[in-house]
Amino acid sequence: MTKRLYIQDVATRDGFQIEPAFVPTEDKIALIDRLAETGLAKIEVTSFTSPKAIPNLRDAEAVMRGIHRVPGVDYTVLVPNVKGCERALACEVDEINLVMSASDTHGLANLRMTPEQSLEQFKAILEVTRGSEVFVNASLSTAFGCPFEGEVPEPRVHELVQRLLDIGVQGVTLCDTTGMADPAQVERLCREVLERHPQVVFTAHFHNTRGMGLANALAALNAGIDRFDASLGGLGGCPYAPGASGNICTEDLVHMFQRMGLDTGVDLDRLLACAASLPELVGHEIPGAILKAGKAARRYPRPAWMDATA
Amino acid sequence: MTKRLYIQDVATRDGFQIEPAFVPTEDKIALIDRLAETGLAKIEVTSFTSPKAIPNLRDAEAVMRGIHRVPGVDYTVLVPNVKGCERALACEVDEINLVMSASDTHGLANLRMTPEQSLEQFKAILEVTRGSEVFVNASLSTAFGCPFEGEVPEPRVHELVQRLLDIGVQGVTLCDTTGMADPAQVERLCREVLERHPQVVFTAHFHNTRGMGLANALAALNAGIDRFDASLGGLGGCPYAPGASGNICTEDLVHMFQRMGLDTGVDLDRLLACAASLPELVGHEIPGAILKAGKAARRYPRPAWMDATA
Repeated sequence: MTKRLYIQDVATRDGFQIEPAFVPTEDKIALIDRLAETGLAKIEVTSFTSPKAIPNLRDAEAVMRGIHRVPGVDYTVLVPNVKGCERALACEVDEINLVMSASDTHGLANLRMTPEQSLEQFKAILEVTRGSEVFVNASLSTAFGCPFEGEVPEPRVHELVQRLLDIGVQGVTLCDTTGMADPAQVERLCREVLERHPQVVFTAHFHNTRGMGLANALAALNAGIDRFDASLGGLGGCPYAPGASGNICTEDLVHMFQRMGLDTGVDLDRLLACAASLPELVGHEIPGAILKAGKAARRYPRPAWMDATA
Repeated sequence: MTKRLYIQDVATRDGFQIEPAFVPTEDKIALIDRLAETGLAKIEVTSFTSPKAIPNLRDAEAVMRGIHRVPGVDYTVLVPNVKGCERALACEVDEINLVMSASDTHGLANLRMTPEQSLEQFKAILEVTRGSEVFVNASLSTAFGCPFEGEVPEPRVHELVQRLLDIGVQGVTLCDTTGMADPAQVERLCREVLERHPQVVFTAHFHNTRGMGLANALAALNAGIDRFDASLGGLGGCPYAPGASGNICTEDLVHMFQRMGLDTGVDLDRLLACAASLPELVGHEIPGAILKAGKAARRYPRPAWMDATA
């Protein structure tokens, strides 16, 4: 039960990109620097995408160059194409994260690329990374279901994982992009990819859209997954279901694993302090549960009347 | 994977009792009658407690006598004492549910009784039920932790379960009253009670206070538990954490189990229709996720521009 788990925060990329308001560059830098002191294994800092496509992350270079790099923390960025990769390498990121969909319709709707086209683009990106020390991860969206097509056949997911590895991708994130996964499916799929590729670094990325986020994380853990994406405060909604939750909440995930006696390497109190600063930063409430309810270790004073009548 | 699960709704008791406003008797009856048509195994209808203690449930007799009893559905009521038991038996309930705490401080704060005092009272209640066909269940609050005392030692929980069975209680519900349980603890404790008492009907009762509600339900399922309390719409907050979630949400639980391929016997669409009526009934939003996001089977149309450019 003391196996080390690796928690990776995506709030400053996956969360900030869909916020209604631009978070000032210096606030992003300050938050990332505080997150880096919590013991998180990895931080997805930003996205080197077109400023027109995602104006909220138009300050990608300034953020990457402004942060203080804490040894032991991996700083990763989302990279959509060769140009983004060159920008990321110029900032000396530790890792780049490529994104493709497991389903054609979601790929076309979200990235304007089918999986085949994404794989071709990844090959071109991998040409650019050759010779560098950057770690190349690929996130496979809709690996547990597509909001347009429905079920994504598991053999198709396994095929795409294999093809990613064949072209030189080093790590793969299985993403439940719109919160369709259930724990039985998660345990089955995760167990199978780990059996097929015992040397590969796999990450699980869940959304809490339908309340199953932590249950799915538990199922992935039971299958042997030890790396989890999550978003501080649960930042990041679901574009297909207004008002619904998005990414699972980092502090809620860390809290659950710690209560279970598992080693996340994270200082939960520091992480909660980071989360507590979010509402002011983004201008609205955030969905995380522990921030509202307190840790399970929280103690309440005996009701006053109990002592008064003693 | 086709083992039958039993889902028991507590919204009209555990939820309505702490609502700011009294839900009219005829609305309670209508909701319970609709819930009974969804395939739920059991409905905790109301509480035969003092109208002064819980004014919202002052219509217990009228509700119990007004509902249409669907064959195959168990109608249970909370009973705090001998008088409540007599009132419940006069209404020909199928089951009475007794409540005690596993921890002294919570028992005194919530019920003004230590566990020892509760057990004495239960003996008196069981005298009253003798000769009737009513099923006697006991709910053990704070079985996974006490908000005042912290950890409740597992041997103490096992001792109290044994003593409940010794005095003639037929079913036991292990309650995570304030959302302190974690999945590792749940799996361990549930596995142990089932091993010790293979013939006894155990129910798991979780709160989603710290986001772990469905993860804990999954852990209980993995341990062999097949009965679950839940509350329609997630109704019922946490008295110790304003704004935090209370009971796990029935439709979210049923949705998860169905996606996993398990048989709950529940018609999820009918259940969702019941949940959709709640906000008007109680005058505020409810925390359930599926009502907001739709079922995982929900399909979205392809974005219009994809066809326009085809």
